[in-house]
Amino acid sequence: MGFTLGRCLGAEPSKALPLFPFLLTFLLVGIQGDSNAMDNVATERMAEESHRQDSANLLIFIMLLTLTILTIWLFKHRRFRFLHETGLAMIYGLLVGVILRFGVHVPQSMSDVIPSCAVNASPATLLVNVSGRFYEYTLKGEVSRGKGHQVQDDEMLRKVTFDPEVFFNILLPPIIFHAGYSLKRRHFFRNIGSILAYAFMGTVISCFVIGLIMYGFVSFMKVVGQLGGDFYFTDCLFFGAIVSATDPVTVLAIFNELKVDVDLYALLFGESVLNDAVAIVLSSVLLRLEKQGRQGSGALLPPRGNDPVWQEGAEEWLGENQTLAGSIVAYQPAGDNSHSFEAMALLKSFGIFLGVFSGSFALGVATGVMTALVTKFTKLRDFPLLETALFFLMSWSTFLLAEACGFTGVVAVLFCGITQAHYTFNNLSPDSQDRTKQLFELLNFLAENFIFSYMGLTLFSFQSHVFNPMFIIGAFMAVFLGRAANIYPLSFLLNLGRKNKIRSNFQHVMMFAGLRGAMTFALSIRDTATYARQMMFSTTLLIVFFTVWICGGGTTPMLSFMSIPVGVDSDQDTSSSAVLDGSQRRNTKHESAWPFRIWYNFDHNYLKPLLTHSGPPLTATMPACCGPLARCLTSPQAYENEGQLHDEDSDFILNDASVSSMYADVTVSTDASGSHTINRKHSFNYSAGGGPSDEGLDHELALAEHEVAIRGTRLVLPMDDPVEPPTTVTLPPPPSPPRSDPRRHRL
Amino acid sequence: MGFTLGRCLGAEPSKALPLFPFLLTFLLVGIQGDSNAMDNVATERMAEESHRQDSANLLIFIMLLTLTILTIWLFKHRRFRFLHETGLAMIYGLLVGVILRFGVHVPQSMSDVIPSCAVNASPATLLVNVSGRFYEYTLKGEVSRGKGHQVQDDEMLRKVTFDPEVFFNILLPPIIFHAGYSLKRRHFFRNIGSILAYAFMGTVISCFVIGLIMYGFVSFMKVVGQLGGDFYFTDCLFFGAIVSATDPVTVLAIFNELKVDVDLYALLFGESVLNDAVAIVLSSVLLRLEKQGRQGSGALLPPRGNDPVWQEGAEEWLGENQTLAGSIVAYQPAGDNSHSFEAMALLKSFGIFLGVFSGSFALGVATGVMTALVTKFTKLRDFPLLETALFFLMSWSTFLLAEACGFTGVVAVLFCGITQAHYTFNNLSPDSQDRTKQLFELLNFLAENFIFSYMGLTLFSFQSHVFNPMFIIGAFMAVFLGRAANIYPLSFLLNLGRKNKIRSNFQHVMMFAGLRGAMTFALSIRDTATYARQMMFSTTLLIVFFTVWICGGGTTPMLSFMSIPVGVDSDQDTSSSAVLDGSQRRNTKHESAWPFRIWYNFDHNYLKPLLTHSGPPLTATMPACCGPLARCLTSPQAYENEGQLHDEDSDFILNDASVSSMYADVTVSTDASGSHTINRKHSFNYSAGGGPSDEGLDHELALAEHEVAIRGTRLVLPMDDPVEPPTTVTLPPPPSPPRSDPRRHRL
Repeated sequence: MGFTLGRCLGAEPSKALPLFPFLLTFLLVGIQGDSNAMDNVATERMAEESHRQDSANLLIFIMLLTLTILTIWLFKHRRFRFLHETGLAMIYGLLVGVILRFGVHVPQSMSDVIPSCAVNASPATLLVNVSGRFYEYTLKGEVSRGKGHQVQDDEMLRKVTFDPEVFFNILLPPIIFHAGYSLKRRHFFRNIGSILAYAFMGTVISCFVIGLIMYGFVSFMKVVGQLGGDFYFTDCLFFGAIVSATDPVTVLAIFNELKVDVDLYALLFGESVLNDAVAIVLSSVLLRLEKQGRQGSGALLPPRGNDPVWQEGAEEWLGENQTLAGSIVAYQPAGDNSHSFEAMALLKSFGIFLGVFSGSFALGVATGVMTALVTKFTKLRDFPLLETALFFLMSWSTFLLAEACGFTGVVAVLFCGITQAHYTFNNLSPDSQDRTKQLFELLNFLAENFIFSYMGLTLFSFQSHVFNPMFIIGAFMAVFLGRAANIYPLSFLLNLGRKNKIRSNFQHVMMFAGLRGAMTFALSIRDTATYARQMMFSTTLLIVFFTVWICGGGTTPMLSFMSIPVGVDSDQDTSSSAVLDGSQRRNTKHESAWPFRIWYNFDHNYLKPLLTHSGPPLTATMPACCGPLARCLTSPQAYENEGQLHDEDSDFILNDASVSSMYADVTVSTDASGSHTINRKHSFNYSAGGGPSDEGLDHELALAEHEVAIRGTRLVLPMDDPVEPPTTVTLPPPPSPPRSDPRRHRL
Repeated sequence: MGFTLGRCLGAEPSKALPLFPFLLTFLLVGIQGDSNAMDNVATERMAEESHRQDSANLLIFIMLLTLTILTIWLFKHRRFRFLHETGLAMIYGLLVGVILRFGVHVPQSMSDVIPSCAVNASPATLLVNVSGRFYEYTLKGEVSRGKGHQVQDDEMLRKVTFDPEVFFNILLPPIIFHAGYSLKRRHFFRNIGSILAYAFMGTVISCFVIGLIMYGFVSFMKVVGQLGGDFYFTDCLFFGAIVSATDPVTVLAIFNELKVDVDLYALLFGESVLNDAVAIVLSSVLLRLEKQGRQGSGALLPPRGNDPVWQEGAEEWLGENQTLAGSIVAYQPAGDNSHSFEAMALLKSFGIFLGVFSGSFALGVATGVMTALVTKFTKLRDFPLLETALFFLMSWSTFLLAEACGFTGVVAVLFCGITQAHYTFNNLSPDSQDRTKQLFELLNFLAENFIFSYMGLTLFSFQSHVFNPMFIIGAFMAVFLGRAANIYPLSFLLNLGRKNKIRSNFQHVMMFAGLRGAMTFALSIRDTATYARQMMFSTTLLIVFFTVWICGGGTTPMLSFMSIPVGVDSDQDTSSSAVLDGSQRRNTKHESAWPFRIWYNFDHNYLKPLLTHSGPPLTATMPACCGPLARCLTSPQAYENEGQLHDEDSDFILNDASVSSMYADVTVSTDASGSHTINRKHSFNYSAGGGPSDEGLDHELALAEHEVAIRGTRLVLPMDDPVEPPTTVTLPPPPSPPRSDPRRHRL
């Protein structure tokens, strides 16, 4: 729903191509003929027809998704694992693309009226005056036009083509938010150092390695004469950035199903989630740099009209592709192929990178914290619908806020998701916890499968593919080497500092599991105006297909070949007995380097109590002088937890367990989590004396079972005071008939 | 999510105004200057700026909704009932509208370049050639343009204005679907005759009464000289149609909270839900009729250029409003004010009405039935995420399918919702039942509050309001009289046939509770091009404000003044004891007229068993010759229900109870419904011998409690065979630790 509105205002006006956001009025000499009345009626008919056609086109996608869902079910039912649902969606997309391309020929009743007048710019909005009536037009983007029959196909295939910004403004945010919201935080935080190393340094290394290799290939191709257009060093780096974003979806679904070692899982998942953020910021910085270079050099260069290199390149390319589009090539400083990439620019871009990244990070965290505060200090949890709506709106506003401030919305949404999971999730009512998880799970599922089926479709419906065999071979090699340059050296360095080494078979799997997916696709389709970008886009598509089908399908054999332990339960290694649990918790903390340890303590002592109902009361952790403030900010529940003070990080672990069950769809709706979990833990501590015995564990399980029963019946009990805060439940209330519930009201 | 995509393809191209869906190429003599490089960079900057501005604008709406949610919570918390959340949303919208209108003045860097060339039409897509590069523009709609300072305000306020089609393609469908999906079907079906009478005949009566009264007023205004433009009889009828749609939201929320008499509730809810469908089809038929009249008379009339009446009206209006827009006035057959509204046209429009309505109905039911079949014959219920996604996509495809076929999507969605609730809901897994209900509840909540806050905003942000005091007074009188002409005569007629009479205090409440809401607003904002439509829109806004604030707020006093029984539990009067229950069930059936009785039997004997897991097996109800087919279509569970055959309509009643709990947010997540409910009923029948005693009821409640416990723990049990069909659960399985669940996979 929400993303819808994004489309209405937020998404539409962001054009991938140059435009002037001021009005330009065409004062056209309209023909004030009497045929207008008839024209008008015919026009309305045609508009209706067009609307119908569009509905039918959208139906194609819905049917595609429906078909995918049914086939996924069949696969899951029959336990086929060689092909993931995303791979399946791509195949169906491919099939429909083939049909649309070669099967359907809609005759078009087009008549190209060609009036002429002088316009010297392409504004965002056009006002056209037809016989005294003004029509507003909005710029959709630059198009390449062929001639004759080509145009008709264009029209048909262009109908099923989305504005690339749709991906950034509508489809990616829920996917990325879900990734953040479903992060297994304990394992993530245990490996945070390594994950950050892989995500930041690794992506930058990969970007530069791929960029350099591609530059070598492109230079060679230029010598051999295989290159049909310009391709600069910044283009190579841009290509490196977009194909460095690995996808957290496909392999990890398999990992989850097979219960692969949790550390390997955490490393891969954490890396690929942060990866996306790094890649998107990196690519946008590179674009900004390129623009600035263009601006700077544009003024220095001789007029392009007199520049033989540019003319040669452009004509050659126009001849080959029969298109008139593409202008950015023209602004590249032609002559030498090295582009102005200097140390100064590198430093500057590093600064921009840091600024954009930290800004987006701060915004995401800020909205997350605000949501936590609102849900903590209001009794909104009595109305799950309101709570869920608020959660949804706040999370979405992160995206808009970041875009409005000029940061990257997708990155902000990622960190907002992590913050929401870490703090806000604990404040939500159990009902809202389920609702929010399920909502974003669904949005993620739909968006993901839509992107993948669209990817399949694009292979045939996209008009200006440039498949260059040499470039493709080079790209595959570069991607492979770039991934290797990321994983192996970094693993070596990290192993020097890690107690729990990253074994070589883990490294091979990480190397193999570097799938490219939705983010890579979205980044590459964002701008396909120039020859270089078109070649990148086509190549990227092939890389995605290859990695999803081959690497994704080969994961299971690869795991057994590498003898990676499967069937490891992520909960087992921590909660099988309380002693082990406690020691491992301490391990989690002590394994990390000191900055992370400081953060742990700060988070546990101040942030958790401030933002959630759990943790030690602030009155105990804050200095005495802040007494009144601390009392005011601490929730009543926190005092109940005071006895537990020695049991550090318990909420960390417990909440992680609850979040980790998110991936197991069947268990999602009844996991006991949040404050309830903590309360249960608490009562367990008192009833069993906190003793780490098997008997205590059994007791706890029995209590948990009880609680489910209680929660089940609680909702049909007469509850006269809806504002009563949730307290520790130790005894099941007596059952009563459901018909006397006074709280039946509709939100 | 889905509605998002609707925006991408489905919504965008449907323009409210005339357009030619073919390409028109401007071959403009571009200026091939060298300043292009600099231009380009500046352009990109401005595009970024514009994107930021748009994100900020959308943020305003998000903040509005967030504020509304927090205030709603406060109201609910403090049990204020005098203002409903929708009224609140409107007030906040109004405030923001005032601020935007009078508070904010964004200086615009606009320079109106005015080139001139000849265009004789306004196509859907424009291709503009700027220096050899082609830009594609899409038609957004016709705009009215003022001069000077006015333009700047325009720009600011136009930014927060949505395409009216957004309401029809994105915001209304979830609202209407939710209304259908949450219909209390038992009470609905018990009163179906009366509901249909109010909805169909009542709306048509109301439409014509309002139309005639308004025609009188308009004629009088014309004589007095108060009318600033043309206003025809079809316009009056159109106005009657749009203000005849009553809103099912506000009053019913209060009714639900106060537990008003179920029959009154059912009558009002059923009427206002079907009402919307009738009004939307009626208004579209009137529009179509008007167009045809225009087409027919357009050819007969003298050229408009020579028509003094048109020129006078248009100039007068242009002078008053300082705008240049509005063309449809010009196409009305000027001269006499009666318009061509003849008996033939009336008959024809009745035919169109029936065609569109029944087509939409059939499509909606068809998709619902298809979803029921798919969910019945696949084991999709093992994967709630897939099931929910499928349910969502199928429901959405109804809308697209109807639009693609030229029917009314919103109406199709309504009947799809009812069908889904009646059949598909029973096939879904309990998890999916919750998920789908919660999802559509959330979508409904967001869409509704968005519409109402937008309504408030529009009062100030809309550019061409026409507030005519006389027209407004007339409209309020007409709306009042139209409602009276709907309720009182029809109630009198219906009481002749009803055993359970509609008492006069019920009639007064129905009269009073005729609120106008989202549908009326959406219909009136759809086309605001002419003077008549603008006056209608402004008046409609005031009617909505008045009814929501005054009638909505006065509902509680009204109920006590009319001594309507409150605190009636809808479940109590049927399930307090099984004898009463059974007799009332039979009543439900026997109270209805014979067509409904036939339908009951057909539905229970054939449709329910065919489409769901419940009901008697088809082998028992179908003739012997169809044996093999019947066996193949009957689900295994149905045979278990065979013993219950005497217990007719039980699924009807039980499912109704489960759906009725939808409005009580707090009870929503644990109601036992669908096949589980039936299974429980089944085991109860055997264990307590089907005896209608209080002991049996207690037993059932105990079982229900057990079942919740089972369902809670079932999910953490080792289930080795996920494809096992759900069977009757009578004994709780032994609890086991949660860590050995092998079904943890991610969808």
